[in-house]
Amino acid sequence: MAQQEAKFKVIGTRPIRHDGVDKVTGRAKYGADIDLPGMLHGKVLRSPHAHAKIKSIDASAALALPGVKAVITSADLPDLPSGVVPMGELPMNPRHLSLNVMARDKALYDGHAVAAVAATSPHIAEEAAKLIKVDYEVLPHVQSVVDAMQDDAPILLSDLRTSGAEEKSDKETNVASQLRFARGDLDAGFAAADEVVEREFDTSMVHQGYIEPHNAVAQYNPDGRSTIWVSTQGAFTARDQTAMILDIPASSMKVVPAEIGGGFGGKISVYLEPLALVLSKKTGKPVKMVMSRGDVLRATGPTSGSHIKVKMGATKDGKITAAQIWMSYEGGAFPGAPVGAGCMTVLAPYDLENLQIDGFDVLVNKPKTAAYRAPGSSNSSFAGETVIDELAEKLGFDPLEFRRINGAKEGTAQPAGPQFGKIGYIETLDAAQNSDHYKSPKPQSGNGKKRGRGVASGFWFNAGFQSSATVNINSDGTANVVTGSTDIGGTRASCAMIAAEVLGLKAEEVHPVVADTESIGHTDMTGGSRVTFATGTAVYEAAQDVVNQLKERAAKVWKVEAKDVVFQDGVVSCPSDEKNEPMDLKELATKLPRTGGPVSGRAQVNPRGVGPAFATHVVDVEVDPETGKVDILRYTATQDVGTAIHPSYVEGQIQGAVAQGVGWGLNEEYFYDENGTLRNAGFLDYRMPTCLDLPMIETILVEVPNPGHPVGVRGVGEVPIIPPPAALANAIHNALGVRMEELPMSPGKIAKAVIEQG
Amino acid sequence: MAQQEAKFKVIGTRPIRHDGVDKVTGRAKYGADIDLPGMLHGKVLRSPHAHAKIKSIDASAALALPGVKAVITSADLPDLPSGVVPMGELPMNPRHLSLNVMARDKALYDGHAVAAVAATSPHIAEEAAKLIKVDYEVLPHVQSVVDAMQDDAPILLSDLRTSGAEEKSDKETNVASQLRFARGDLDAGFAAADEVVEREFDTSMVHQGYIEPHNAVAQYNPDGRSTIWVSTQGAFTARDQTAMILDIPASSMKVVPAEIGGGFGGKISVYLEPLALVLSKKTGKPVKMVMSRGDVLRATGPTSGSHIKVKMGATKDGKITAAQIWMSYEGGAFPGAPVGAGCMTVLAPYDLENLQIDGFDVLVNKPKTAAYRAPGSSNSSFAGETVIDELAEKLGFDPLEFRRINGAKEGTAQPAGPQFGKIGYIETLDAAQNSDHYKSPKPQSGNGKKRGRGVASGFWFNAGFQSSATVNINSDGTANVVTGSTDIGGTRASCAMIAAEVLGLKAEEVHPVVADTESIGHTDMTGGSRVTFATGTAVYEAAQDVVNQLKERAAKVWKVEAKDVVFQDGVVSCPSDEKNEPMDLKELATKLPRTGGPVSGRAQVNPRGVGPAFATHVVDVEVDPETGKVDILRYTATQDVGTAIHPSYVEGQIQGAVAQGVGWGLNEEYFYDENGTLRNAGFLDYRMPTCLDLPMIETILVEVPNPGHPVGVRGVGEVPIIPPPAALANAIHNALGVRMEELPMSPGKIAKAVIEQG
Repeated sequence: MAQQEAKFKVIGTRPIRHDGVDKVTGRAKYGADIDLPGMLHGKVLRSPHAHAKIKSIDASAALALPGVKAVITSADLPDLPSGVVPMGELPMNPRHLSLNVMARDKALYDGHAVAAVAATSPHIAEEAAKLIKVDYEVLPHVQSVVDAMQDDAPILLSDLRTSGAEEKSDKETNVASQLRFARGDLDAGFAAADEVVEREFDTSMVHQGYIEPHNAVAQYNPDGRSTIWVSTQGAFTARDQTAMILDIPASSMKVVPAEIGGGFGGKISVYLEPLALVLSKKTGKPVKMVMSRGDVLRATGPTSGSHIKVKMGATKDGKITAAQIWMSYEGGAFPGAPVGAGCMTVLAPYDLENLQIDGFDVLVNKPKTAAYRAPGSSNSSFAGETVIDELAEKLGFDPLEFRRINGAKEGTAQPAGPQFGKIGYIETLDAAQNSDHYKSPKPQSGNGKKRGRGVASGFWFNAGFQSSATVNINSDGTANVVTGSTDIGGTRASCAMIAAEVLGLKAEEVHPVVADTESIGHTDMTGGSRVTFATGTAVYEAAQDVVNQLKERAAKVWKVEAKDVVFQDGVVSCPSDEKNEPMDLKELATKLPRTGGPVSGRAQVNPRGVGPAFATHVVDVEVDPETGKVDILRYTATQDVGTAIHPSYVEGQIQGAVAQGVGWGLNEEYFYDENGTLRNAGFLDYRMPTCLDLPMIETILVEVPNPGHPVGVRGVGEVPIIPPPAALANAIHNALGVRMEELPMSPGKIAKAVIEQG
Repeated sequence: MAQQEAKFKVIGTRPIRHDGVDKVTGRAKYGADIDLPGMLHGKVLRSPHAHAKIKSIDASAALALPGVKAVITSADLPDLPSGVVPMGELPMNPRHLSLNVMARDKALYDGHAVAAVAATSPHIAEEAAKLIKVDYEVLPHVQSVVDAMQDDAPILLSDLRTSGAEEKSDKETNVASQLRFARGDLDAGFAAADEVVEREFDTSMVHQGYIEPHNAVAQYNPDGRSTIWVSTQGAFTARDQTAMILDIPASSMKVVPAEIGGGFGGKISVYLEPLALVLSKKTGKPVKMVMSRGDVLRATGPTSGSHIKVKMGATKDGKITAAQIWMSYEGGAFPGAPVGAGCMTVLAPYDLENLQIDGFDVLVNKPKTAAYRAPGSSNSSFAGETVIDELAEKLGFDPLEFRRINGAKEGTAQPAGPQFGKIGYIETLDAAQNSDHYKSPKPQSGNGKKRGRGVASGFWFNAGFQSSATVNINSDGTANVVTGSTDIGGTRASCAMIAAEVLGLKAEEVHPVVADTESIGHTDMTGGSRVTFATGTAVYEAAQDVVNQLKERAAKVWKVEAKDVVFQDGVVSCPSDEKNEPMDLKELATKLPRTGGPVSGRAQVNPRGVGPAFATHVVDVEVDPETGKVDILRYTATQDVGTAIHPSYVEGQIQGAVAQGVGWGLNEEYFYDENGTLRNAGFLDYRMPTCLDLPMIETILVEVPNPGHPVGVRGVGEVPIIPPPAALANAIHNALGVRMEELPMSPGKIAKAVIEQG
């Protein structure tokens, strides 16, 4: 830190966040706050069946209700061909995108959109939706991946064939894809092991649980241009997906990103946007659609439940000799489970010679899954880190020491192949081991309560992708930073601070703006912990572009060469000719009009120097063996965060992710009944942790700067959601002596395990 | 044109304007359409006196009215020091700006703002404004420049001293400034003349008469940041002026430019913006203010009435030997009459050896004048072109021929000094002379009606100033052009077409956007016919920046050097290695993500290659000698427009300006009574021409490209308002044989002149 303090003036400080006042005063405008003259309100009718043929839809009663202006079904959307087309760097299947937004011939899950209505009020729209008569033929459904992989399983998509399968087959299947990462000699590895542990795990489908439900306001113009206001993780992504679904040019659409009340990966896919736009086109009015919490849980994109088998062996001296993992993830009703990431991350903290990881993306009659913070990794790491804990225990190692023996370092080959660059995994183990928490005695059981400590590690790639930024110098010498990146976790502050650092301004003198899709260059969605890294790179380069121009302008004022001008800490000077008085940005700004006009910098990037993140968490729990309730006594999260631009925000990201990881680990689950109906589609029954459930999450920031970023940023938001379920499972084992194999580790399951244990 | 067609593919065509559909379908959002939750409505109380001391203001009754949330007076605005400070390249007096927005100790004109109120509805606000009791001490007022220049005239601003005066004086005065342009030997010039004409002229204060009244919606945030939505000619100008008046950082304010319903120079100054923001700060709510038509006429910025003396002499062979012009312009209540432009333009079409032009900016108890399309030039040219017509007539020359003999060409010294570059004045004379109109016989008097033909010329500098532009390539290969220039006269279309030309796209494939002050670099106001020239230059350079990047990207795809890539007509190719298949922008756009990310170009300019504009108009009139009513039989406007980007828009600009010039010439005037009260503050009594008053205005575009602009743009919007009053006066003389010396040449005045003529 001492070194950092010398290096940076703004980076590493904790200024008041730029978006703070707007948020605490209630002035920040979320999508649902948008209100246009003449606006109609839309509502979606959703399938009550997990799997059903749609034989006919009769909207006549709905259309007859006064105030109803239009009803749409899949017949109002283009019938797109199936197949993969690129969207930027990502493959997309337009047909699947479209079918998820509006069912065509079959409803594939409870909550699947079947029709939508626009009316003069949301209440009329809701009433009208109930009047739409749908004639369903209920089909057998399947909701577990294990069942869905059976030969006789009900088939969701008849044209689905397994991609990545070793042998091509024309058989109907629910397995959308399979993949394998392998190296070394597994048999030899297991043979060399002194201890082998083998377990099977299940995790439940869970939801990101953002506070703000999905929303969209769409206005279609008779010239074919349209505008959508929406709370989204990516305005360009929402634009491109909507254009794809409606088969219209992306450039005919403007998406205005509203403030966002959480996304965590769940606000990348479009749900309401295309429907609102079609309703607007049909009615000639702007149409607003806002989901209820029930809609959000039933019909947006939770993340996959999974079934995972792990077999791992290690020697007496603590070296893991072989690891075999098989994982099958729920894709939901369409392909797209994050099983690839599950495979590639689970063993990434370790340097392993012999491994084989198999992954399957399997369709089930549940909502199509979406990204959720380090998507896919919490599942597999829950399994992997539990087994590693068990190996360490059986071989008599401290669990951090066992991880250190096997820990990945610069040059270690990842399970997916590439070697790591500069990483800080070992540093997170050091930080955990040296933490006040870990050095404090383990909590002792007593008073009928069992207490224990657990640790777990996690790895996340972080992402790059495309970003654009412009930096405009104001007439008073301050700067505006314009990006296209939705600010979910503090990226306005971090981008402004990066620009302030380069320009020698205070953080408060840089005003960050998130622009609409017409006012900034293409920018991929906010996700993959990429914004401070990638958009921050664009901002850094755009600010450098400004600095170069400022030097040229000062050179014009002084009639010297630009190369003779020095820019430092916001001041231009000309050391070679001292009669030229140094000027700060405020003064130089007054000289811009006559030296060529305003100064703006721009940059667009797709940076390749992504720096991965590692985290190691320590948790102490108290378990009530009678009720099975788990209380968290203390939680410490260490993480290699690269350079922490705004440490408070970084800590906040870690604390938020841990809270979500705890919910995933202990309580959250999609609960379907035998008919395939989601029975807990509300926050009363879908149990997320509240502040009463959590202690203060202690954070230890380890800063190993990423050499691939101009100021060392890695990306911090995702990796801290990975260790909590495993750390909790290990702590519960430490307390009770039972290994939990199922998420959530809810009171009932723990009580059952205690009873089974005897 | 043939050459142009070969040169350009998009420029010179007439695509449907980009903003057209929004406007004809009523979806375009003007300032008054802005509606925010919890919004209050503001109303201004205005002085009923032309000149009065404000002894006290009692708002208690207003504040007691239910629904009233706040009343403000000058006490709520900072008491700024007088003095000139720069705003960009223009000098501003913060105190005068502030005093015009809200009177402090004295009201200086009928309509001067004295207090403002915010209430829950516009009706309550209006009611409340009437309840504010102001104790006035009425002072003597002066409303004519001739009177105001007298030693014993009532003084408006006690601290005013004449700038530019030969001798410094500490005497109180209404003369804000005086200036002189002179060269040669005036006495010798007049001595050499065979004919000398000397006349005095008066013109009335007139208003731009834009359809849309001024408006502003302001929202002040507790963190000191604020947003203003407003129909303005310059978002940055509105921001900087408001910041200056309120003594807050310009960068703390975002101005969002709404669609604008006409400006013509009158929407550059702020009126409501600072009041709405102070009311918002005081109430904690957004505040909307919209002027009535009466407010607009009484209290915004019309243009100066003037008194002008002209003496000019010429030889028998048609050479003007001397010209002396004295002009005094109404500044209104504060300095700022466009008398400098009046002086510098009046004789600019001519190559003169001996001239002296004196100008005076004089305060009178009328609203502070603002710019109005070629500000100051219609006044002086009415005088100058009348005298030139008379000289031509007396010396027996065709009026166009007489102008040709004296006409300015490349290298001619302007009255203000600098030599002209490439200009097209003579070409406009040729065009007029060769026009069907001029070649047709003059209309013959008969049936009790007198008919005649008149011509006149005009010159306007056009302006440069600062502009910023960014060009973003969309994922589908189309482009967005982002500027900060309010589009009043078609500049979205012209900027998009310039970008389309450079990028090899269709006009429709480029989408122009006018961004707010936070999303684009500094851009000066829309005025001085500068946008297609200066912002167009920025767009051209930003598009070139894009082209350079596209070449680099193609080079990456093909693994060649960027210098080996050719970009033409939207296609990249590699002639030196033909295995590389040429790619159009649509295809290349799909390769951008993997070759470095998105592509955006940016440019900021303050271009110096401004190209002046000349116009020559021909008009045939019919005068009813009984009533004095003038009917326009035929009107032809020729103009050197430089390169016409969108000829229909250029023609529209000319037609609109002629309509305004006709109104100015024949009917429009501020009519004050003896108390200094404006008696015609509405469109019923302030008589603007309607389409029933005008024939189709024929336009002849002369395209002499401006070598100072990458595609030859000059700027077209202003010069066509200059010739109409003089051309009409000359036609009326041709019809009746009387020289009109006063604007407007309304029926009463013409009837009177006919009677005086006998």
